Amino acid sequence: MAPITRLVLDVLKPHDPSVVAFTTAIGDLEGVEAATATVVEVDENVKTLRLTIEGNDLDLEAIREEVTDLSASIHSVDQVACGERPVDDPWLGN
Amino acid sequence: MAPITRLVLDVLKPHDPSVVAFTTAIGDLEGVEAATATVVEVDENVKTLRLTIEGNDLDLEAIREEVTDLSASIHSVDQVACGERPVDDPWLGN
Amino acid sequence: MAPITRLVLDVLKPHDPSVVAFTTAIGDLEGVEAATATVVEVDENVKTLRLTIEGNDLDLEAIREEVTDLSASIHSVDQVACGERPVDDPWLGN
Amino acid sequence: MAPITRLVLDVLKPHDPSVVAFTTAIGDLEGVEAATATVVEVDENVKTLRLTIEGNDLDLEAIREEVTDLSASIHSVDQVACGERPVDDPWLGN
Amino acid sequence: MAPITRLVLDVLKPHDPSVVAFTTAIGDLEGVEAATATVVEVDENVKTLRLTIEGNDLDLEAIREEVTDLSASIHSVDQVACGERPVDDPWLGN
Amino acid sequence: MAPITRLVLDVLKPHDPSVVAFTTAIGDLEGVEAATATVVEVDENVKTLRLTIEGNDLDLEAIREEVTDLSASIHSVDQVACGERPVDDPWLGN
Amino acid sequence: MAPITRLVLDVLKPHDPSVVAFTTAIGDLEGVEAATATVVEVDENVKTLRLTIEGNDLDLEAIREEVTDLSASIHSVDQVACGERPVDDPWLGN
Repeated sequence: MAPITRLVLDVLKPHDPSVVAFTTAIGDLEGVEAATATVVEVDENVKTLRLTIEGNDLDLEAIREEVTDLSASIHSVDQVACGERPVDDPWLGN
Repeated sequence: MAPITRLVLDVLKPHDPSVVAFTTAIGDLEGVEAATATVVEVDENVKTLRLTIEGNDLDLEAIREEVTDLSASIHSVDQVACGERPVDDPWLGN
Repeated sequence: MAPITRLVLDVLKPHDPSVVAFTTAIGDLEGVEAATATVVEVDENVKTLRLTIEGNDLDLEAIREEVTDLSASIHSVDQVACGERPVDDPWLGN
Repeated sequence: MAPITRLVLDVLKPHDPSVVAFTTAIGDLEGVEAATATVVEVDENVKTLRLTIEGNDLDLEAIREEVTDLSASIHSVDQVACGERPVDDPWLGN
Repeated sequence: MAPITRLVLDVLKPHDPSVVAFTTAIGDLEGVEAATATVVEVDENVKTLRLTIEGNDLDLEAIREEVTDLSASIHSVDQVACGERPVDDPWLGN
Repeated sequence: MAPITRLVLDVLKPHDPSVVAFTTAIGDLEGVEAATATVVEVDENVKTLRLTIEGNDLDLEAIREEVTDLSASIHSVDQVACGERPVDDPWLGN
Repeated sequence: MAPITRLVLDVLKPHDPSVVAFTTAIGDLEGVEAATATVVEVDENVKTLRLTIEGNDLDLEAIREEVTDLSASIHSVDQVACGERPVDDPWLGN
């Protein structure tokens, strides 16, 4: 299987655990080299995060399990990249 | 034939298989070096993906067959690049 | 004559041949190093492509002939670059 | 724990201490390599700052304590990055 | 005299000669290293081109003469750069 | 104290001294390596400048004193950066 | 005095002398390494230029004198930079 090198996830998270605790827990998972969480919406009981994860061979199911253990949920998968080198989407203008 | 080095495809995909399973299956095809799928619309039964694929000699028919095997369909081809080196479209501002 | 190094063409193409067949046929022409076709509009019978071609000494007439052989037509020439090195248009913000 | 490498915080600060005193106090914390505060809103009694902090192993609780000691408060955490290398959010277009 | 290194000209051109013939004729002038013509408007009898020319010592009068010989006219001079190195206009965001 | 490496100040300045005299006087202060003043508004009696100052260890009070000596005033501090290396604000898109 | 390294000037110029003659005359001044003039408005009797000048030690008064000798006038000074290295304004997004 082509290894996944980047995932961008839309995550709903209660206010507890904090964004920091949440992001570092994701960063601790095997195969995760780096994770960046951007808060895109704050509601009364929940925060919406756009979570960008990079690694050499990411495992979405392990990530989903950890997200669930952290009382959060993956609302949607916004981007998946796999392969030998990173390829940006030419329409996003990176 | 000038080898195809990049394809950007608009893909309609049922919710199953997942974006990850879909993208890695594309990434496993012969000649595909990297693939990035960005989710651009989510409807009740279907997701619309913009799928950017790079390689040294991409075969659209093999990709289309795999897409079909994955219960999805190529709605349109948005960009095709071929040749010795990548050439960006100056109007897209990459 | 100063050799042409980049052409950006607005092309009208019937749905057959496909964008891939069309682009690789252009990429096969003598002097063409790389070609990128971006689909900018899809109508019932025709697709509009913005076709960016780079090379060391492009021949528009040979390209036009090939475009015609492919049942398509050059609707307009959007950009022509010639000379020893590439010069970007400062108003396009590349 | 995956070390935190970047924090972007939304901070409410009374006019005293000044933005300079505030930012350098944050810059003095252990593990902080650099801090940039951008003033995004000025109200009668309070300034809103977007505070970007980078380091090798940032400690949000130590930062929060210092912010509180400076009579200010963290209104929200806007971005958290952790891991071996920086990963930018592809939707922010950095 | 400080040598001119870049000219951006607004040119009105009848449909004949073609943009390619026009641009390569400009590219053939002494001192012109590269020329890029972008078509910005197409009217019934005339095309408006933004013509970017770079060289070590451009001669606008020789360029104007050639433009006139090609049945076209310089409608306006949009940018002139001279000197030892290129300096971009900070307001254009290049 | 973490040394300040960049300050962006909003400055109100009467028409005399000139922007050049004002900016070079700021550039002459100890610790200032470079200063750029952009005029953002011109009113009857006053100009508003955005003043970007970089150095290894900037002293805002010395800068404020000099600004006052030049008959101008710091209307607000828009950005303060300190630390071992420059950190840009990811929301400004630099 | 901290040497001025960049000036951006708003210049009103009659149609004669031409933008080319005007820009090269500025480029010929002592201390000017490069000058770029962008035409931002054309009225019946006058053109408005944004003139970007770089050098190691620019002298605005010598520039103003030359501008006056060329029958033009400096309408406003839009940016002044001085110091050991160039510093861009982070709000302009260069």
